[in-house]
Formats: sequence, C-alpha cells, structure tokens
Amino acid sequence: MQVLEGDAAWAALTRSFNDIPVPDAVLARIQDTFGEALSPEAVVRRILDDVRRRGDEALLDWTERLDGVRPAALAVSPAEIEAAQVDAPLHEAIRLAIWRVRDFYEQQPAHGFLNHSAQGALGQLVRPLGRVGVYVPGGLAPLISTLIHTAVPAQVAGVPDIVVATPPARDGTVHPAILVAARELGITQLVRAGGAQAIAALAYGTASVPAVDKIAGPGNLFVVIAKRLVYGHTGIESLPGPTETLVVADDSADPQHVAADLLAQAEHNGAEPVLVSTSRELLVAVQAEVGGQLEALPEPNRSWARDSVLSRMKVVLAADLNEALDLANLYAPEHLCLLTRDPWSLLGQVTRAGGVFVGEYSMEALGDYVAGPSHVMPTGGTARFMSPVNVRDFQNIISVVGLNASVLRQIGPAGATLARAEGLEAHARAIESRL
Amino acid sequence: MQVLEGDAAWAALTRSFNDIPVPDAVLARIQDTFGEALSPEAVVRRILDDVRRRGDEALLDWTERLDGVRPAALAVSPAEIEAAQVDAPLHEAIRLAIWRVRDFYEQQPAHGFLNHSAQGALGQLVRPLGRVGVYVPGGLAPLISTLIHTAVPAQVAGVPDIVVATPPARDGTVHPAILVAARELGITQLVRAGGAQAIAALAYGTASVPAVDKIAGPGNLFVVIAKRLVYGHTGIESLPGPTETLVVADDSADPQHVAADLLAQAEHNGAEPVLVSTSRELLVAVQAEVGGQLEALPEPNRSWARDSVLSRMKVVLAADLNEALDLANLYAPEHLCLLTRDPWSLLGQVTRAGGVFVGEYSMEALGDYVAGPSHVMPTGGTARFMSPVNVRDFQNIISVVGLNASVLRQIGPAGATLARAEGLEAHARAIESRL
Repeated sequence: MQVLEGDAAWAALTRSFNDIPVPDAVLARIQDTFGEALSPEAVVRRILDDVRRRGDEALLDWTERLDGVRPAALAVSPAEIEAAQVDAPLHEAIRLAIWRVRDFYEQQPAHGFLNHSAQGALGQLVRPLGRVGVYVPGGLAPLISTLIHTAVPAQVAGVPDIVVATPPARDGTVHPAILVAARELGITQLVRAGGAQAIAALAYGTASVPAVDKIAGPGNLFVVIAKRLVYGHTGIESLPGPTETLVVADDSADPQHVAADLLAQAEHNGAEPVLVSTSRELLVAVQAEVGGQLEALPEPNRSWARDSVLSRMKVVLAADLNEALDLANLYAPEHLCLLTRDPWSLLGQVTRAGGVFVGEYSMEALGDYVAGPSHVMPTGGTARFMSPVNVRDFQNIISVVGLNASVLRQIGPAGATLARAEGLEAHARAIESRL
Repeated sequence: MQVLEGDAAWAALTRSFNDIPVPDAVLARIQDTFGEALSPEAVVRRILDDVRRRGDEALLDWTERLDGVRPAALAVSPAEIEAAQVDAPLHEAIRLAIWRVRDFYEQQPAHGFLNHSAQGALGQLVRPLGRVGVYVPGGLAPLISTLIHTAVPAQVAGVPDIVVATPPARDGTVHPAILVAARELGITQLVRAGGAQAIAALAYGTASVPAVDKIAGPGNLFVVIAKRLVYGHTGIESLPGPTETLVVADDSADPQHVAADLLAQAEHNGAEPVLVSTSRELLVAVQAEVGGQLEALPEPNRSWARDSVLSRMKVVLAADLNEALDLANLYAPEHLCLLTRDPWSLLGQVTRAGGVFVGEYSMEALGDYVAGPSHVMPTGGTARFMSPVNVRDFQNIISVVGLNASVLRQIGPAGATLARAEGLEAHARAIESRL
C-alpha cells in the first residue's frame, strides 16, 4: 500500500460528484442480460417505464428475468409472516436492535412550534408522511438490520403505513429473519421484488403495490439510479450506495483494532476503506495487521476484503490531527471513526460525515446493528448535502400564518408595495381589501 | 364555472404525479428555438451536458440563445451591488420582509442533541451546509421576495456561502431591487444566468460559478426538470413549480375577500385556483365578485387571471367542513386558506399543504412577502412528501456514536450475532476484538 501525503492525499480524497462509477462487472451483466451495451441508466429507464405501464405483470417479468424467480404472489401473506422463525439468540438480537434504534430516534428533537403574540400566531406544523416505502436490498444474506434501521425512524416519526420491498430468494421466499424483524416491527406489507423494478412499483404503484409518498433505504447501482429518476414523482430520503469508512488514528490507536475496523469495511464487495493517521509507525503496524487478519477470514469475505484492500484502500499520512480532520471533511465519508488519544476533542471539527464513531468502543460494526443511530447514511460524498436516515425524513413541515387585523395594518402596506414592485396587482389588492 | 360535488369533486382534486404537464406554448417555443420537436427533458439534458463540458462559454451561449443577451461578465461586480438604488418605500419594505422572515426562522427548532448516560454518549450533530445556490426566476418583474424567502432560511441555518443565480434583463443588468435585497442580506455572489443553464452551473461549477452543495428556489418547467436531473450530484430542497391556492370557505366568509384571494392566485400565468365551500350561496356570490374584480385589474394581469379562472379554476361544493378538509388534504395544495367561522379549529385536520393561512387577516398574498414563513412552498401535490423552504433544508445531521466498554459488553454479542446472520464475519470480529 502506497502511503499518500500532502497534495497527493488531498487529490486522492477529493471526489468527483459528476458520475456514479459503473463497475465493469455491471456493464458485462447488462450485456449478458440485454444483448446490447446499454448504460445502467438506460436499463433503469426501460424498467421504470415498463412497470409504470404494465404494473404487476412487468414487476413479475423483471423479477423473473433479473432475480431468476417468478413468485406466485408478490405480497407476502400474513401467514408467512406469522410462521417465520429464527433461533433464539438471533431473535433476541433483532429485538435489541429494534429497541435501541427506537430509543435513539425518540430522542431526536422533531417538533414544530406555534408561537402566539400580539400579532396572532406563526409557526410550523410537523406531520408524518402518509405512506413510506422501505427498500431492503437482497444479495447473499438477509439485511435484517437495514429493515430495522430504515423502518424504525419512520415509525417514530408517526408514519402509519410502511411498505417493504425486498428481492425474493430463488425459491420465491423472503428470508425468515426479515419476516421475524417485520413481525417484531408490526409491519404487514412486504413485497417480493427488488432492484429498479421494486423502486418503480413503490413510486408509481401497481395492483399489488400501493404507491408511496417517499422511498427510503440503500441499494445497488440500479436502485440508486432508479431512486434518482423517480425523485419528484415520489420523495427520496437520500441515495445511499456502496459503503465506506474513513478511520482517523493517531499513535495511541491499537493497530489490531484499526485493522479490524478497516476489514469490517473491506469485506463489503467493492468497498473503499480509508486510513488517515498522524503516525507513520501506526500505518506500518496496521498494514501488517490487516494482512494477518485478512488471511484468517472465511470465504467469500476474504476475497472481497482482499480486493478492497489491494484495489481501493487509501492510506494517508497527515501532518497533524487538524489536517486529518480537514481531509475527512473533504472526503465526507459515510462513516468517520476517531481512534485517537482524545477523540471527543475532535468532534467540533467534524463538518461532513454520515456518522462519527468516537473512540475505541464505538466501532462502526456496532453502529451497523445495535448502537442506536440508523446505519443508513449518505455515501459517495453526498454527506455534503444529505443526512443519515432520521425522523425528519419522514415528516413534512406545514407553515402556519395566523395574523390579526392589528399587525396587518402595520405590515400590509409594505406587502402591497412589494407585490406591485413584482407586478402582482391582484396580490396588492387582496392585501388592501382587508386594510 | 361548473360546481363540482361528491365523486366528481374527489376525482377533480386527485392529482397524477406521473408527469409534469407541458403547456403547448412551451413545446412551440422549443420547436422555434431548436428547430425540432424535442421534449423539455431532452432540451434540459442537452443544456446540462453542454455547461458541464464547456463551463462559462456554454453558460454564455445558452444565455444569449434563450435570454437574448450575452452579458460582458457573468458575475455581478461589488460596485454594481453597491450602486443599486430603489425608492424609499420599496427599500423599507425589503428591509421589513428580511427582518420578518429572519425572525420567523430563528424560532424554528433546529438543534441537535448529545445525550450522555452510563453507556457513553449518543446524539446528532447539526451542521450548516457549506455552500448553497439560490435560484431567483426572471420574467417580467424582479422576484425580490423569492431571493429573501430562500436566502434567509439558509443564513439562519448558518450557511456561510450563498450564490444567487438570476436571469439578466435584455441589457445584461440585474434589476436594482434584487441587488438592493442582496446588499441588505449581505450576499455578494450573484450570477447573471437563469434557466437550466444556471442550474447546471450551480451543480457542476464553472470558472465563474462555484459548484454548490444544494440548490434552492422555484423556477419554470426547465428549472424544475434541471433540478430533478442534477439531484444526486447536488442537493435539491424541493421542486416548486407553478403556484396554486386552495381556499376553504364557509357561509361566514366575505365573498369580496374570497374573490380577492382567488384572483391573487389567478394573476400568475398558468395558475390553478381552487375554491371549496360548504355554502352554495357563497359560491354564487364569489363567482359574481370574481367577475367584477377581474375586470378592474390592469393588463397583463387581467388576461392571465381571466385565463386561470376560465381554464383551470375549480369550484367545489363540500358536504361539510370535514369533507372540505379531506379534499384539501387530498389535493395537497401549496397554499391552503381557511376562511371559515372558526378557522383555528380546523388546523388539527390539516395534514398535506405547503402553508396554511388561517382566517381573514392572513391572506396568502401577505405570506408571499412579509408574514414570515418562506413563500417557497411545495407545489403540484409534492406537499405529500416535501416541505416549504426551512432551516432544515440547509443543515446536515451527523450521527454520533460514543459508547464505552461497559455497554459494549452488554450489546456487543447481539451485534456480532446480527453481523454473522448477515454474512459479515469481519464485522463480528471487529466487535469481538474489543470484548
């Protein structure tokens, strides 16, 4: 691993926001599936248009074509949800995760206000959205935690109606751990569909899938593109894509722990771990540790972690902790881990990140499950302008204007002056009609 | 005007979110400008790509082609901002509007939290965005209020860097009233560019225009489409398009006032006023009043208002106020005006709107200027999932996880169980490395 310093480090951690990178494997899969070299966006547009036009039939066709199964029913039945079982430790862990995420979001200040004065009242009503779609990606394992970390903030916000979409397994089932989590959450609407076709169904609605007001949750490249394209028809909470972690460590950090945290990131297929340290000795020690721990991982995690480490991991030597934090803010990572002598003292300097993991006992891996805050956080540098999933994402604000005759006399003429300056005579007259 | 009731009313106020309507005049203008029948989206893509590739030159070319002027400099100079003057009443009205909007947003609860306990600390940091773009539409008159109602909430949020884009007049100038408002706001960065080309410049950056983290503000069809298309590269606060008002009135309402409020909406070119009343007598009286007040308006407001009233205004007779509010929530209007005997008693039933204007002295026209809350509100039914411009739009949340060894021992094993259920062995080991 090459150690970057100074200008080279700044250049390496400066992101371009102009393109979502498309891995070659994705292009190859498109060529295989469609027989032509379409862009991922062209594929997604085709899927969105088709589901919008043909509804459930299109949803089933694309599920068959892309996920290799044509489910007998798109909706999971209440009996299936009821019957699902997992072993006791996992069941207890699911309950603990739900409890901790709920407890965290119940602490978020998310109220409106209505301030009465001599002028009347002005304020903001805060209202939960009516219906929210939660996307739970598929893949090799059930992403139980993604369901919990997306649905719970929506429930805390007061959303009455949550629809979960997740790709079915090859036999058409949804993994029992997902069903158990849904049951524990009181969620009864689950749709066996994933990818862009699921986003289309949630945005436009089909006979089996009700159209939702907002779609939340992470996904692969096609899901992210689909969310971008339906934005405006439907609300989108953010565009979380491939996960990423930036660790800031000084000479007090334990190389074993730093390496473990980097590998926890690296084992995601395609991940991009970043280590920024003020200590050259630590960088050397971590590299040795990463090598050793890597070899001890089972497959396929070992291969993915090795690929992440060899192909994409960035290692930076910073002049001091100020430069380290500046680099972190420049990169705007999904996860920022502070493994330094006095990590709390750095918090005030953090301006761009999804989540900050402060100190030795707050490893990001814990945040993925039971720490409390949602693990659905902005990636790809979008932490410049997006936030982790939170209660605000599932609420609307409604402004309230309730003035009286007395304040109208004071401010009405200025309002009419501005209206006329903007050429809006009927606006001026509507104000003057009450003066 | 046909009076709609029952199912016909429900059908008329149910919106389709699947397409942004494209007026024939827009298609004709595209044909004129481009010599071919492009969709507005195709036009916007062409402009976005060009500005992204060629920067300032493209921005100037499109400004010349679409706005009929090629400004000598894209940036407005400090001397121009300093020299701008308007007459004293307008200057005072601008100051009042800024003061009232600022005072309102300073009341919005928008803080984070960091709760310490026996487990350590969990919380959310709240950070202002770094740089925000404010789009101020052009047209026949300077939209002073749009600048104020977008920039002030960003300033209250603490955004240090605001860039305003607005189309220049035919002589290349920006209207002095806009410059005076900018000066009063302490804004020094103004770009002479509008339309999709301005959105492209703010999203991607050019030599003269710095790329921003988020773009706020209303615009025409091309601006709204451009904002949708750059979403993801850049943050977007909402997609405010053509304005709209729904008035709920009972038999206590003054027909003169109801008519004045409807016409204040109708004078916007292409507006869609809606009146829902429980009183047939009121509907009849309002229609007569609208006719009279309409004729008294100057041109071009009269023609636009007449077109809105004749072509798009909807008049509904509701069975009772409950049905009236249900219809209002279904429609999810930008502006909801409550002109009833006891308007405050209805507030609890309002679930979908941009702003609620409560009672006789809170006419929406006042809200456009000096009431306090931003007049930039969600239109087209997007109040289902979007909010008026507010302080939250200009802040990011960063989750904070700062746990200690004691809680890690309690919850770590459950975290490792979940990680293994999701196939993430290195996550489990990162947790266990500290147990």
